[in-house]
Amino acid sequence: MHDPDFTLSAGPVSVSPRVLAALGSPIVYHYDPVFLDRFRRTAEKVKQVFQTTNDVLLLQGEAILGLEAATRALVAPGTKALNLVQGVFGKGEGYWLRDFGAELHELEVPYNDAVDPADVERYLDEHPGIEVVTIVHSETPSGTWTDVSAIGPVARAHGALTMVDCVSSLGGMPLHVDEWQLDVCVAGAQKCIGGPPGLTLMSVSNRAWERIRANPTAPRASYLSILDWKEQWLEGDKFPFTPSVTDVYGVEAAVDELLEEGLESSISRHAQSAAACRAGVRAMGLELWPRSEEIAAACVTAIAVPDGLSDVQVRAHCRARYGVMLSSGQGVGNLVRIGHMAGSARSLHPVVGLAALGQTLRDLGARVAIGEGLEAALEEISQPTRALA
Amino acid sequence: MHDPDFTLSAGPVSVSPRVLAALGSPIVYHYDPVFLDRFRRTAEKVKQVFQTTNDVLLLQGEAILGLEAATRALVAPGTKALNLVQGVFGKGEGYWLRDFGAELHELEVPYNDAVDPADVERYLDEHPGIEVVTIVHSETPSGTWTDVSAIGPVARAHGALTMVDCVSSLGGMPLHVDEWQLDVCVAGAQKCIGGPPGLTLMSVSNRAWERIRANPTAPRASYLSILDWKEQWLEGDKFPFTPSVTDVYGVEAAVDELLEEGLESSISRHAQSAAACRAGVRAMGLELWPRSEEIAAACVTAIAVPDGLSDVQVRAHCRARYGVMLSSGQGVGNLVRIGHMAGSARSLHPVVGLAALGQTLRDLGARVAIGEGLEAALEEISQPTRALA
Amino acid sequence: MHDPDFTLSAGPVSVSPRVLAALGSPIVYHYDPVFLDRFRRTAEKVKQVFQTTNDVLLLQGEAILGLEAATRALVAPGTKALNLVQGVFGKGEGYWLRDFGAELHELEVPYNDAVDPADVERYLDEHPGIEVVTIVHSETPSGTWTDVSAIGPVARAHGALTMVDCVSSLGGMPLHVDEWQLDVCVAGAQKCIGGPPGLTLMSVSNRAWERIRANPTAPRASYLSILDWKEQWLEGDKFPFTPSVTDVYGVEAAVDELLEEGLESSISRHAQSAAACRAGVRAMGLELWPRSEEIAAACVTAIAVPDGLSDVQVRAHCRARYGVMLSSGQGVGNLVRIGHMAGSARSLHPVVGLAALGQTLRDLGARVAIGEGLEAALEEISQPTRALA
Amino acid sequence: MHDPDFTLSAGPVSVSPRVLAALGSPIVYHYDPVFLDRFRRTAEKVKQVFQTTNDVLLLQGEAILGLEAATRALVAPGTKALNLVQGVFGKGEGYWLRDFGAELHELEVPYNDAVDPADVERYLDEHPGIEVVTIVHSETPSGTWTDVSAIGPVARAHGALTMVDCVSSLGGMPLHVDEWQLDVCVAGAQKCIGGPPGLTLMSVSNRAWERIRANPTAPRASYLSILDWKEQWLEGDKFPFTPSVTDVYGVEAAVDELLEEGLESSISRHAQSAAACRAGVRAMGLELWPRSEEIAAACVTAIAVPDGLSDVQVRAHCRARYGVMLSSGQGVGNLVRIGHMAGSARSLHPVVGLAALGQTLRDLGARVAIGEGLEAALEEISQPTRALA
Repeated sequence: MHDPDFTLSAGPVSVSPRVLAALGSPIVYHYDPVFLDRFRRTAEKVKQVFQTTNDVLLLQGEAILGLEAATRALVAPGTKALNLVQGVFGKGEGYWLRDFGAELHELEVPYNDAVDPADVERYLDEHPGIEVVTIVHSETPSGTWTDVSAIGPVARAHGALTMVDCVSSLGGMPLHVDEWQLDVCVAGAQKCIGGPPGLTLMSVSNRAWERIRANPTAPRASYLSILDWKEQWLEGDKFPFTPSVTDVYGVEAAVDELLEEGLESSISRHAQSAAACRAGVRAMGLELWPRSEEIAAACVTAIAVPDGLSDVQVRAHCRARYGVMLSSGQGVGNLVRIGHMAGSARSLHPVVGLAALGQTLRDLGARVAIGEGLEAALEEISQPTRALA
Repeated sequence: MHDPDFTLSAGPVSVSPRVLAALGSPIVYHYDPVFLDRFRRTAEKVKQVFQTTNDVLLLQGEAILGLEAATRALVAPGTKALNLVQGVFGKGEGYWLRDFGAELHELEVPYNDAVDPADVERYLDEHPGIEVVTIVHSETPSGTWTDVSAIGPVARAHGALTMVDCVSSLGGMPLHVDEWQLDVCVAGAQKCIGGPPGLTLMSVSNRAWERIRANPTAPRASYLSILDWKEQWLEGDKFPFTPSVTDVYGVEAAVDELLEEGLESSISRHAQSAAACRAGVRAMGLELWPRSEEIAAACVTAIAVPDGLSDVQVRAHCRARYGVMLSSGQGVGNLVRIGHMAGSARSLHPVVGLAALGQTLRDLGARVAIGEGLEAALEEISQPTRALA
Repeated sequence: MHDPDFTLSAGPVSVSPRVLAALGSPIVYHYDPVFLDRFRRTAEKVKQVFQTTNDVLLLQGEAILGLEAATRALVAPGTKALNLVQGVFGKGEGYWLRDFGAELHELEVPYNDAVDPADVERYLDEHPGIEVVTIVHSETPSGTWTDVSAIGPVARAHGALTMVDCVSSLGGMPLHVDEWQLDVCVAGAQKCIGGPPGLTLMSVSNRAWERIRANPTAPRASYLSILDWKEQWLEGDKFPFTPSVTDVYGVEAAVDELLEEGLESSISRHAQSAAACRAGVRAMGLELWPRSEEIAAACVTAIAVPDGLSDVQVRAHCRARYGVMLSSGQGVGNLVRIGHMAGSARSLHPVVGLAALGQTLRDLGARVAIGEGLEAALEEISQPTRALA
Repeated sequence: MHDPDFTLSAGPVSVSPRVLAALGSPIVYHYDPVFLDRFRRTAEKVKQVFQTTNDVLLLQGEAILGLEAATRALVAPGTKALNLVQGVFGKGEGYWLRDFGAELHELEVPYNDAVDPADVERYLDEHPGIEVVTIVHSETPSGTWTDVSAIGPVARAHGALTMVDCVSSLGGMPLHVDEWQLDVCVAGAQKCIGGPPGLTLMSVSNRAWERIRANPTAPRASYLSILDWKEQWLEGDKFPFTPSVTDVYGVEAAVDELLEEGLESSISRHAQSAAACRAGVRAMGLELWPRSEEIAAACVTAIAVPDGLSDVQVRAHCRARYGVMLSSGQGVGNLVRIGHMAGSARSLHPVVGLAALGQTLRDLGARVAIGEGLEAALEEISQPTRALA
């Protein structure tokens, strides 16, 4: 099969020529002075994206590594943890918490809905002693988000540390680590950052480090150990093991582009692309997967597949016939997703996604008002972008 | 500081333009049909490099991930493991074995020596019931190797599984997984393969899978789980998490180059480059770190730093003044290392390494017969390469 | 200003990742054996694209170099030349012919029309002794083409050599050099071939060489000399001057992709993309520039700008506001052009071009039925491609 | 054959990763606003390299295009031109001058010698009315240079314009266009600039433009016309034809690197590399081609091939056996050349060239003191670089 013409997935995403050039630049020895500088410099830049003065780690593996590593570091047998669940990633976090011995508390809503911060506050009030709150900022498979800005301070006020899965939101949706009082944040490079899928970007507060250092079951001398990175690298200038030189190059280039554009600008165009896509979906006569627009994420739009068709069929036809790669719902339901991440949250990419999806559905027998949908999306795109918090 | 002119390290190494082009090629969604094909195809090609029909896994992290994952998979509390130690990597493996609950047996020699297969056989005879033998094929920090071809069959005959750290040998030194009856082999992509440092290449025999499936403490639902890769990917076409798309591209290109050249040819030039380097070292009046040439690895030459000078000083001067990056001994002793890996095991690279080292030592006050050394190296390089097993 | 999101110009065009990788691959000395092979190999492959056994030259400059060089080579003072004019490139060829001393004959039609081969035959009948006929296959600035398949044999029958400007048609529209009896064909790499804009691809028949060798005013010892390339390179293995190594890499990669896809397939999708674009234009209520669809080129669609707006204004808004780069009419009239060349003649690129143009026109106050236009384009794109001659 | 391991030619040369990345970056339409900026910006940067406020043109072809274009522009039938000849490029310039109708005056020395500026002054005194003096700054095929700093002011004082072939010297040897009063300077990108071989860099003084505008035989409406570039581009923002987008990217990146390093630093290391190479040649018992070191160019070292061997044989063995590409003498004599241009004028590249040449000669039966030669080269390289004018 021909390479895709357009990758409009929920990540890994198409990255910019500048990032590709960085990924293809010469590999050097990890203790070469130029690499040591580059590694440190990249972490400093990532701090700016997280809007934090906390430590930032660049772990050598996809974000799932960071999520597991952070969870293992924070949790010991008996730890009281409140896990917020509005999708498969939140659900999975709960399995880990239980596996690692935590006393698991959960607030769960249907997978097309979002956890209400007020419910979190109420739960914490009613269950004193919760030590850790685990939150998925953007539930990528369902295309929903929850209001971490409200949950962070509440958790802090109740004496709990927060661990936030912001894998797909960082760079594309507002996230203020320090202002929102978030302790551990785990992001991916291959989503709104527009980098390669080989690194975890993680911020860790001093409060979190205190807990982790005191946790006898926190991984040590392990690929899963963030303590090793703290003690050997941040405090000792020695890599616990060889970093992925190429991926670091890619992340630095991606973050450079993001910071040069400005976080606000990036977030605005993600919001606008998603709004255009949602407007198009509605005008085409299709249904969004999230139960309301308010909880629809800016980085990906999840769209219910019309009755009688399956997501597998739709995505395969769209890819084979039009060269456009969409994402599935990863088990959430019969839905397809159009990503708005990094470069795909620019220009007419939402129109491409909608046109490909619309024509695919029509080819497969569904009734779709394609023209109306594309007009609606263009109408939104033609508006000046709005500054967003 | 200016980028290095020559990276003659013990890995990560400079990679070829073709590998760089692959690393810089467009990132696609991991479930894009072209990526699925590519991922599977890459594993098949890696099998050829391992010379095996065993399963091959491409884990998303530097080889240390693979070593830890394999050790955790094979070992349960109480497992009788014989660990062979002739350097820091072998030593580290022993720490893990103990941490994971094994009953640790060790055969240890000084870090400039190599374990004798006859001693392994004797030990296994004397200690029946050893379940796992862990071996470092090429002890990169000390520039030595051990004869795995003799150890593999002995272990098999004694009913023990073997786990081989061939991180730095694969592609540059003979390694016949099936013929030598090796159960788990863990290699890096960033050494003699000439790929990026973000993936582990691992072969796993059916015998090993049987043990791992039966091991209740083998990691599951974890970044460290090779069982997840077996059950979800190899048996289910579902990635346990997002693979490092870029790194996979790089590894495929590197392996393509290796297979097109031919494994024999690659191994011959690694041997010749190392022989040239050793001849140069001796003729310059310097000392090799390994106690004999027979146990010196073909992928890296470790050289004792003359008295009065330190490896830190030598490497810093060589890098700053001549743009040549050498490796340290990673704690083994006062030595520097010239890598012969992938592209640096070609052409006049050994001459560059020797010239840079020789002139550096002379600049720092040592007496070095540079001209004689370079002549000796060139003499070796001018010989036709010899076919090696 | 941000880099363009979509380049839908009439060339230079966006090239594929494979071509970019080739362009970024290491520069070698032009007499390196690997480059000599590559240069020769590339010419052989270009012959396949021209469908000829004639000599093929790769001149080191944009196609205008080839057009001038070929004209100077073929024409001496007094040469009777018939020049066919249906646009600015044909017109310019006439100026050259006169400058170089030819006795100029011209058949000219309005710049939105195409020369009729029957008129050419009539003219040649009525004016015996015409030695050279100069033809523009695809008049890129006006988006029209003429039927060279009919003109070539007629010219041959009348004893005239043909010189064909197929700069923008090669690879995207049918062109059979041998079958159509064409003597000199001059193409660009940066159009439907999908290569960089630094090389001329030229085929030269033996008949043409005979004339050129006999022409005392044909350039010799000059950058404009194709005789130098014939005598020094084709017959002597010596470059008359240094070839553009990088551009040669790019052209080879582009031609490889084209041949792997198959010329027929490439031509079909260029035709389909152009048909989709024309359908979209009409359905949006806009007017094509060419007076009929039959004479509209497959590689670029020229669209009349609605009254009251200027092409400068439209293109600037489209580029600044939507990141989509369109081409102007290069002086032909108040028109804009959407290219369908190489990668932009694939997938939903016509939809992107139409959406950007449509929304731009609406933003600027014109009435445009965008939705209808995009539906019409998608309808055409959703059809199976048709095999074309 | 395997790609070369080291290209130590006299150009095209290996270029830096940054230049390769630029060459591989996306091609945009030549009237895209970002390209227009880039093209203008690149010319401004090239002015800094020429150290001039004169106009700078970026012609779309190898420097031979610029040399021919400049000669045709400056010379009309009957123009009195003094041509300085110390090698094949100077000789060739004379042929052109005669072809284009000039009254040719020549000062010629053997091809291993350099023209003496005092002789130029004497000639101009004795032959009043010379309008143009044509000079080759660095005669690349013979590895010699002449003192343009002395000739420029002398020519100006005698009312003659100067046309300087600095193809291989710009960026690697001192050249002060304004201070030295040089009217037209023609440089290549693929030599000491470290760019691709597809562009001519040319500076043109106002005096020269006056002459050219007044010259009725200066090319107009031609690929060879620099007047077109002056009138259409510099004065009209319209490209006379499509520029080589990719090559422009490459030149900008190369010039950026050069200016960031500093011209002085670049020139110093070219001088040092050449000095090291010459020291090595002598110590190996070989002979330089230039009759004295004073006239040996800093960008390339020409070495006489020992009796009984041929340059073809030597270069072929060196390339095939050691992967090192050297240049021939292009017909000057039985010599080989080691380039010191851009990246090959750094670090231990001279050692690589000498080692490869020395071992090659020994393999072929010559007596060569390789060790002594490499020691001598290293001794020179180990010295601090000297600031040079």
